[in-house]
Amino acid sequence: MSERETDRLTELAKRRGFFTGTAAAYGGVAGFYTYGPQGAALKDNLEGAWRDRFVTREGHMEIDAPTVMPEAVFEASGHLETFNDMLVECAECGESHRADHLVEDHPDSDVEDAEALPNAEVADLIAEFGITCPACGAPLADEPVEDFNLMFATNIGPGDSSPGYLRPETAQGIFVEFPQFAEYARNQLPFGVAQIGRAYRNEISPRKGLLRLRELTQAELEHFVDPEDDEAPIDRVADVVLPLYSVPQQKADDGELQELTVREAVEEGVVESDWIAFYLGLSKRWYARAGVDMDRFRYRQHLPGELSHYASDCWDAESEIDGGWHELTGFAYRGSYDIDKHAEYSDEDYTVFKQYDEPITVERPTVDPDMSYLGPEFGEHTGFTIEESTESGEHVRPHIVEPSFGVDRLVYTVLAHAYSQDEVDGEERTYLSLPAAVAPTTVGVFPLMDRDGLNDRAYEVARTLRDAGLAVTYDDSGAIGRRYRRQDEVGTPFCVTVDYDTLEDDTVTVRERDSTAQKRVPVPELPDTIGALRDDDRSFEDL
Amino acid sequence: MSERETDRLTELAKRRGFFTGTAAAYGGVAGFYTYGPQGAALKDNLEGAWRDRFVTREGHMEIDAPTVMPEAVFEASGHLETFNDMLVECAECGESHRADHLVEDHPDSDVEDAEALPNAEVADLIAEFGITCPACGAPLADEPVEDFNLMFATNIGPGDSSPGYLRPETAQGIFVEFPQFAEYARNQLPFGVAQIGRAYRNEISPRKGLLRLRELTQAELEHFVDPEDDEAPIDRVADVVLPLYSVPQQKADDGELQELTVREAVEEGVVESDWIAFYLGLSKRWYARAGVDMDRFRYRQHLPGELSHYASDCWDAESEIDGGWHELTGFAYRGSYDIDKHAEYSDEDYTVFKQYDEPITVERPTVDPDMSYLGPEFGEHTGFTIEESTESGEHVRPHIVEPSFGVDRLVYTVLAHAYSQDEVDGEERTYLSLPAAVAPTTVGVFPLMDRDGLNDRAYEVARTLRDAGLAVTYDDSGAIGRRYRRQDEVGTPFCVTVDYDTLEDDTVTVRERDSTAQKRVPVPELPDTIGALRDDDRSFEDL
Repeated sequence: MSERETDRLTELAKRRGFFTGTAAAYGGVAGFYTYGPQGAALKDNLEGAWRDRFVTREGHMEIDAPTVMPEAVFEASGHLETFNDMLVECAECGESHRADHLVEDHPDSDVEDAEALPNAEVADLIAEFGITCPACGAPLADEPVEDFNLMFATNIGPGDSSPGYLRPETAQGIFVEFPQFAEYARNQLPFGVAQIGRAYRNEISPRKGLLRLRELTQAELEHFVDPEDDEAPIDRVADVVLPLYSVPQQKADDGELQELTVREAVEEGVVESDWIAFYLGLSKRWYARAGVDMDRFRYRQHLPGELSHYASDCWDAESEIDGGWHELTGFAYRGSYDIDKHAEYSDEDYTVFKQYDEPITVERPTVDPDMSYLGPEFGEHTGFTIEESTESGEHVRPHIVEPSFGVDRLVYTVLAHAYSQDEVDGEERTYLSLPAAVAPTTVGVFPLMDRDGLNDRAYEVARTLRDAGLAVTYDDSGAIGRRYRRQDEVGTPFCVTVDYDTLEDDTVTVRERDSTAQKRVPVPELPDTIGALRDDDRSFEDL
Repeated sequence: MSERETDRLTELAKRRGFFTGTAAAYGGVAGFYTYGPQGAALKDNLEGAWRDRFVTREGHMEIDAPTVMPEAVFEASGHLETFNDMLVECAECGESHRADHLVEDHPDSDVEDAEALPNAEVADLIAEFGITCPACGAPLADEPVEDFNLMFATNIGPGDSSPGYLRPETAQGIFVEFPQFAEYARNQLPFGVAQIGRAYRNEISPRKGLLRLRELTQAELEHFVDPEDDEAPIDRVADVVLPLYSVPQQKADDGELQELTVREAVEEGVVESDWIAFYLGLSKRWYARAGVDMDRFRYRQHLPGELSHYASDCWDAESEIDGGWHELTGFAYRGSYDIDKHAEYSDEDYTVFKQYDEPITVERPTVDPDMSYLGPEFGEHTGFTIEESTESGEHVRPHIVEPSFGVDRLVYTVLAHAYSQDEVDGEERTYLSLPAAVAPTTVGVFPLMDRDGLNDRAYEVARTLRDAGLAVTYDDSGAIGRRYRRQDEVGTPFCVTVDYDTLEDDTVTVRERDSTAQKRVPVPELPDTIGALRDDDRSFEDL
């Protein structure tokens, strides 16, 4: 998409009800967007598709935790200490900026990852490059670079004795309740716990629309696995070809991707964890069905400096928009870091008890209690004896495999990749080629004219389709061509027109969005036909 | 339900994965709950049922706005100034209390609505009754009573120059964007905008589980209507009988309800607004299908002192739990208050342009510009002339009808009303008689034994049912009776057992939860049969 196309998408998104900046009446507020009816439906459909694929069909649990959590949770998780960005504030105009971005973006700079440097060093670089405030032009050379915690802070109840934070990731709401969920899973590893919900990052100066929000929606799955015994079911996705952009390729910097099957990626060690490889394979097929253009999609491995403190291996699914690559999903092997921390900071038991097939007998040295003091005979008289005991199992701290999806970025990508223009009847047409399964509306129903009973018949058809569980829009306003264009612009894959022939032979015209081809279909077959088209069980050509 | 039954529900809710207090590992935090897998599924199903009934079938829009909003929104809405509770803090132990509740709950007190009194008067009553701190027993006589704003406050971006608040109701995210939504509705009144999402109330000391949360889920519909031209479609619900508890009945204080049809309630003026009456009728049927016991349900009119500043008429749907009545939904006629305020505080136009059927000619006096100064001839020479102009329509400020549903309270009510005990095979049984349409799981599938191919066959049956869009649980662990009990406790309406006969004649046993009756059903008919049972299109007796 050219720059102009991005602008057009934003314009269409507002005009047609996908999304718009929040509280524009009061000058707006950066990093917050409101989904209009089309956007909310698209988002809801994508969330439903995620739930179906990553929760229901995998037999995982889905839970729903609060967005506000007490401080203790984020002390343990490390967010209170480390979830920071580098802040430099202009003394002249008061504007705040990301210090690392200023350094990276300066023309004289060859620093690629300023965030990895100490604050003082970044301050020195600002002085060295003579960087000025992007807002007012004042020099920033004398300003300190400070840590700014990205969690939104609040107080729970009156006063400030009980600080709370808006969660920076939905995941902590799962980790903190792990003992409870392990019980629901009857202590059987592996098991997965998923959550779709809001997360918050108080970005210093977000300026990238839906791609960098202060309030976002995540769909996260925490898959708890036995690090010793559980292998990923990679057979299920072994032949899926992954477009990989590994660390060596990034260092080579030629932008070339490595196309490997999931099995090859594991066997050649390009993807270290078989669990991560499994999820790359599972996700790729899902992304394609959700409407992401696979020619503008890749899996990029995190560079060593980029890895989170908890992750041993991490890949991002990325999509290309306007020539830039943007994270859609982070696939992280978090080890047992998160539950280790909660075990350390609380009194709860964050393990599962793994029962052996048969009880085993272990010998372990014990200290004779009467002899265990370090008396004068120490060294001569050890006081140790060997005791036998029977153990029925052991306590295991599971490892965590986490696919963490950003829903808003997915919505934006799917829209950007669906945005299309062509010429129909000599006129330029804009349409969204959204997959039928996620489009806000599945079928538009129109009476050819708003008279002669056509409207009543069309209304009846609409109701029948709605009762069959389809998302229907009824439109009787304006010329039929204009109604088609309206549905094209919101990505409705099929339109049904009730005309005078319908009153005679009980058939309607079904028109397909992308091809604008039309076919006659008997009304009684309509719900099943549209349903099958939506679910990709039939193709329009074969009707 | 007796007290003991409430306790049992809470115990079952935790043990079986409906809900549990958040962050128990860190001592918990009052007013926050985490939904486990069963609770999240039940909540999601109830939200889906709400969307189907109040949004999709009514042709309204659904949107999705942020939970954090800038201060300007709540300055305009009035929440910054008036969304307060009365706080008294104990100087001794630092504990905070609701001053009005202390006064109302004191044995010597006959004050019913202390919140309606000035703060100083409530402080005087605390002194007069000699009320002490419920936490430590210290006297509160000398403590001031202060307003505590119930919005969670935070800062957007670095510093404190851009305060933000967690929205106290989802509604403001709709009102503030009204001009945009009116455009999507092509400026045609009436239209409705709905939203399901989080809202927050920083309660001083919440102690009622899911009934008084600091973070809650609302399902709100803002129906924008033309106050002059739009009449509610009460014909659609005219014969629904409403269990009404009006202001006069509350004053009589005999607890008697008045049973009137929607039409009677409107004609007799018991419910003032036809729109409110319409929604009472529509909701009652919906509540019954969602699993609220209609013998423990009523509509209560707000007392004059209880009405919000914006509402001219307000009724609450209430459910009885443990002998107390709790608000489920507020039905408020908000007039044009909210959009009036946003129009006043911002520069946006919060009207719709109502086109006349035909342009009309109006005569209006205008001032001759040359003569309009107040010169010496003022009084003798008026300078007014009558001018004719043609107007194609007028700007209308719509009125707002708002059904505002509390989702968590509904979840709790449905669970409380479903909680049942009986005796089966000489043993006490606990089960949740949830409607099949909202139960977390629709069908449990069991192999009679975990061998002889029964498990493979059962797994296949489970997959077929899941592919048909049903919520399925597969369970092969423990005695069959125990598996039934597990599903009974989470409210699964139907269980399917695959046994040795299945391998012979391809039929399975279907067992109904409430009656524990069993029938044989051919496997090929199973998806349709279970689907029809769930949707109430067939009854179990007629199988």
